[in-house]
Amino acid sequence: MTELRPTEDTVSLARRREADDPSSPVARFGTDRALMLDAGVAIAPWQIAYQTYGALNADKSNAVLVCHALTGDQHVGNTHPVTGKPGWWTSMIGPGKPIDTDRYFVICANVLGGCLGTTGPASTNPATGKPYGLDLPVITIRDMVRAQAALVDSFGIGELFLVIGGSMGGMQVLQWAASYPERVFACLPIATGPRHSSQNIAFHEVGRQAVMADPDWRGGRYLDFDVSPRKGLAVARMAAHITYLSEAVLHRKFGRRLQDRDKPTFGFDSDFQIESYLRHQGMTFVDRFDANSYLYMTRAMDYFDLAADHGGVLANAFKGTKTRFCVMSFTSDWLFPTTESRSVVHALNAGGASVSFAEIVTDRGHDAFLLDEPEMFKIVNGFIASAARARGLKEGAR
Amino acid sequence: MTELRPTEDTVSLARRREADDPSSPVARFGTDRALMLDAGVAIAPWQIAYQTYGALNADKSNAVLVCHALTGDQHVGNTHPVTGKPGWWTSMIGPGKPIDTDRYFVICANVLGGCLGTTGPASTNPATGKPYGLDLPVITIRDMVRAQAALVDSFGIGELFLVIGGSMGGMQVLQWAASYPERVFACLPIATGPRHSSQNIAFHEVGRQAVMADPDWRGGRYLDFDVSPRKGLAVARMAAHITYLSEAVLHRKFGRRLQDRDKPTFGFDSDFQIESYLRHQGMTFVDRFDANSYLYMTRAMDYFDLAADHGGVLANAFKGTKTRFCVMSFTSDWLFPTTESRSVVHALNAGGASVSFAEIVTDRGHDAFLLDEPEMFKIVNGFIASAARARGLKEGAR
Repeated sequence: MTELRPTEDTVSLARRREADDPSSPVARFGTDRALMLDAGVAIAPWQIAYQTYGALNADKSNAVLVCHALTGDQHVGNTHPVTGKPGWWTSMIGPGKPIDTDRYFVICANVLGGCLGTTGPASTNPATGKPYGLDLPVITIRDMVRAQAALVDSFGIGELFLVIGGSMGGMQVLQWAASYPERVFACLPIATGPRHSSQNIAFHEVGRQAVMADPDWRGGRYLDFDVSPRKGLAVARMAAHITYLSEAVLHRKFGRRLQDRDKPTFGFDSDFQIESYLRHQGMTFVDRFDANSYLYMTRAMDYFDLAADHGGVLANAFKGTKTRFCVMSFTSDWLFPTTESRSVVHALNAGGASVSFAEIVTDRGHDAFLLDEPEMFKIVNGFIASAARARGLKEGAR
Repeated sequence: MTELRPTEDTVSLARRREADDPSSPVARFGTDRALMLDAGVAIAPWQIAYQTYGALNADKSNAVLVCHALTGDQHVGNTHPVTGKPGWWTSMIGPGKPIDTDRYFVICANVLGGCLGTTGPASTNPATGKPYGLDLPVITIRDMVRAQAALVDSFGIGELFLVIGGSMGGMQVLQWAASYPERVFACLPIATGPRHSSQNIAFHEVGRQAVMADPDWRGGRYLDFDVSPRKGLAVARMAAHITYLSEAVLHRKFGRRLQDRDKPTFGFDSDFQIESYLRHQGMTFVDRFDANSYLYMTRAMDYFDLAADHGGVLANAFKGTKTRFCVMSFTSDWLFPTTESRSVVHALNAGGASVSFAEIVTDRGHDAFLLDEPEMFKIVNGFIASAARARGLKEGAR
């Protein structure tokens, strides 16, 4: 009988070290710079871990903020300190890439509630000297953006040239445009929506229940006992991972093909390739991610509802905005279908905003934004070039 | 913190009694009537629990076999002995209903591998005197049908007038047509397909891993310890339940509405109605279903691939069939989308079979077949009336 049997190893120990003392640069904010949260509580001290690429120009007009997705982090363009793998968006960001680090100063920060150096449930609670666990207030997308704004302040940057991100990152992009319209010249939300749907919440709730059903979760205090709800988190990841892919891509990649054999085993081992693939996804995830952070990230996405925050009218979130938008979706994304992107576009149109919209034809589902999608790169390239001209950024100049 | 905290109660004790000595009639087969399984092993003795409604006519030509879905059972038209709820298809079956018990003799049997009286993992293994657990060989859809054929034999019925069922029940319908073409006059597979897709297998694998990750599963031997993997099974049910509904119906029924309050709690309780609904689905399921049976049922569906069993050509499964078919799907069913039904229709057409096909417009998703869908009833009515005429069954006569 093959169960999910992940084993604690050096990888996850490395990850646990990253929570308080990350290998990334960290901006620390003391009790005089408390962060007020939507939950109605302030946290202090707090910190935000980030990576930068490229150089900030003299008038600080070439800064690009990249917002990461649910299980992403600040390591967008460098080798990951825990997994040793390449950054999660090296196809998009780097010298000569659509977001050209020879030209732009790119910032990517671990989100509030994360587990790689920004204050989150795995961070030490200054009041107790122990990990926060669930004593950290629930975080919202707006809180994440508020924390990022403080980081951007610390660089002395007034207006960001571009804010870009996919999925939960795209939610942050939209929130930036709504919270700080005067600080965002251009923004590019990808594979996202203005709110989390009922079905999206449902899948997240399954994931949370899988984590909390694991006896090693221990009411969220597992770090105190040097354990973690690895099986529960792996199941959560497996369920979520299905939603990141389309039926078509699963069929193309795995179909009903068996794992290294001709005939089924008539047992409960990984008979099918798709089973083995999913188990692998679950098991590798638990090494690099904190289970409580997973609860906080999913909750933040569930709570996201830009229209509700603006009297029920999405257009009000972007009223009178001068920001230029490029909204992008993928045909086979059933987690954030094109209808969600269209509702953003309609709201922007209603306010007379500058917006372009692209629906990219692909069978790769939601995760397409992380993959090699030439059409996506072309559109990002074009949008950035046009925005750069409008912003007066000279070709090749800093 | 609200966790899934189902409590063992009288309901599930009643269910456990049903495994060996059900309140339904039971056909028992001794060692002289061993059942050969696709796994290559024979089981004996074995038993099959069933319910019947209406009366068999003199020439035994009015028998209808109803095949139940993954978590269904034989209690299609009577009060359920464990939950006390009405039968699962009382809208379809009963006096004056589309399957009219004043006219037809309806049989519904608990499937092989089930937990309500037919031999399954919760049944006592005659070799050990303890529950089978995972010592029962893995069951296939063909094995279920083989067992049903033995039950039909025991009634002295040669040819069934109709075999009908939805989802996993529909798989059995297709398998009946393939295994015993001369014993099925008409068949009506609903919301099903000729094989389980990669995405379908993926969701089932998540459910199985959720069950097996629960320490109370104990390698499948939980009944020996008088425990059961209730939290794991509840998570499995929650994940599966999402796939039974459409995004549209979730939006219509729940949307982003909060549970009995105006503002989110900023915690991990059931804030949203959809969360509370799913938790309820998970918790009530564990009272009436055996966790190992869930593993066996999902595996049987995953293994189902009619084309593969017939040299890779689905049409070969129905070659030369005289059975009349009515194939039905629902527009919003993303678990068994219409394309799956169409592939069955194409295969039947290729062989020149008598087949009609209906795709019913509804936003209720896969579970529509269990609900009050007037269009479905109308089509079933019409198909049965036409088949009855062809079979020479007189109106109102037995």
